[in-house]
Amino acid sequence: MSAGLLEGEEAPALVVNGDGRSAYVLICEHASNRLPKRLGTLGLPAFELERHIAWDLGAEQVARRLCRLTDAPLVLQRYSRLAYDCNRPPDAADAMPEISETTTIPGNTNLSPTDKLARIGDIYRPFHTAVAELLDRRAAAGVRSLVVSIHSFTPVYKGEQRAVELGILFDRDRSLPERLMPCFATVDARYNEPYGPRDGVLHTLNLHAAPRGLAHAMIEIRNDFLSDDRGQAGWAERLAASFAHSAAH
Amino acid sequence: MSAGLLEGEEAPALVVNGDGRSAYVLICEHASNRLPKRLGTLGLPAFELERHIAWDLGAEQVARRLCRLTDAPLVLQRYSRLAYDCNRPPDAADAMPEISETTTIPGNTNLSPTDKLARIGDIYRPFHTAVAELLDRRAAAGVRSLVVSIHSFTPVYKGEQRAVELGILFDRDRSLPERLMPCFATVDARYNEPYGPRDGVLHTLNLHAAPRGLAHAMIEIRNDFLSDDRGQAGWAERLAASFAHSAAH
Repeated sequence: MSAGLLEGEEAPALVVNGDGRSAYVLICEHASNRLPKRLGTLGLPAFELERHIAWDLGAEQVARRLCRLTDAPLVLQRYSRLAYDCNRPPDAADAMPEISETTTIPGNTNLSPTDKLARIGDIYRPFHTAVAELLDRRAAAGVRSLVVSIHSFTPVYKGEQRAVELGILFDRDRSLPERLMPCFATVDARYNEPYGPRDGVLHTLNLHAAPRGLAHAMIEIRNDFLSDDRGQAGWAERLAASFAHSAAH
Repeated sequence: MSAGLLEGEEAPALVVNGDGRSAYVLICEHASNRLPKRLGTLGLPAFELERHIAWDLGAEQVARRLCRLTDAPLVLQRYSRLAYDCNRPPDAADAMPEISETTTIPGNTNLSPTDKLARIGDIYRPFHTAVAELLDRRAAAGVRSLVVSIHSFTPVYKGEQRAVELGILFDRDRSLPERLMPCFATVDARYNEPYGPRDGVLHTLNLHAAPRGLAHAMIEIRNDFLSDDRGQAGWAERLAASFAHSAAH
């Protein structure tokens, strides 16, 4: 299947603490801004690849801290969502976006079926296989996992300022979001903001958690809180506390 | 990952007409009553392995005819649902059932995590990977697939006679079922009977079709109509006609 897009490079999924004993499993689809060498810079200047269009700033650091605090396994994606957005199905127009926010991505225009299949087969498919196999192992061991994906969002999008600080997102199953929410009474926390199921952002959870009947939630933290260690540590600690609270209720 | 359950045996997924040009993709999770050699007979007498508890009688024949009539790709499962029911997630109690209908399955009692993981990793996971890769290839080529799974059900279940002849099953998305249903005005056709989403039978479609935003339906035909060539051919022709009708509306 592989067209060898990542030949000689790292695998797209990095499983951290795979044997962790927490009930929670963490997923971070937008952890990295790395591009496969064969894609060059996708025709973008360097500063664009540092922006939120390429990755979720601070999300990996929060997820790694949370993994250490809670002993949860964590699956990180190693490549930028500009190469393939692993929180979108291959059938979605924005899986390999031609435009992100207001930036045209030259290296994503007029992709051939072969180009697309290389990105799907070498980035999307192995990432989700790694998540599936982790959940399979836990299921075989009789563990009922709680699945949480960790994201960050930009405070200004298309020129609009966002007041929301924390989003707890869900599609059909709001059981875990409702247990997490009471732990964030002192921040501007909202359900399904700044994105929600209509934006297609529940893909990973609809792919892995819902069909298994596993409770799940998507966490979105405003990235201006995550620009330094202190902010990242603080949010990881809050989330760890909310996980403990939810498991107890 | 593999514990070698199927060593020297055929792969669990058989893709027929993979390059077929129909908009439809067919899936038949319960096509076979074959057991992996290492599982013996699961402690069952031969007649039990011929019954509907082991497979969907006639479903493979209808699906293969439908594949030829419509040029749709078809993914068949080669092993019995008593080894692993590929229309159930690894987290479900009935994925490797200890009891099916009223029959105890001795070879499925007290399975260890290692036993379970071998069946998940060697039967369930590669089957669904084959379905996913087929849909990935079509997505890369810009095809929006319509996904239909083909099943049959027993006319008598736990002593109760069933009047329904055809079930068209769905969970959230009823668009394709509503386009198919008008083509079955002369039979006892019902939505979400004799099973529905509450029974967990929409697993395959919730795993592959819904997260991609692809229209889908699950077809259940009462198996007393499928005991001979004539019955199988008649139902395949009706379904082919309904597919053509749905694609046109």
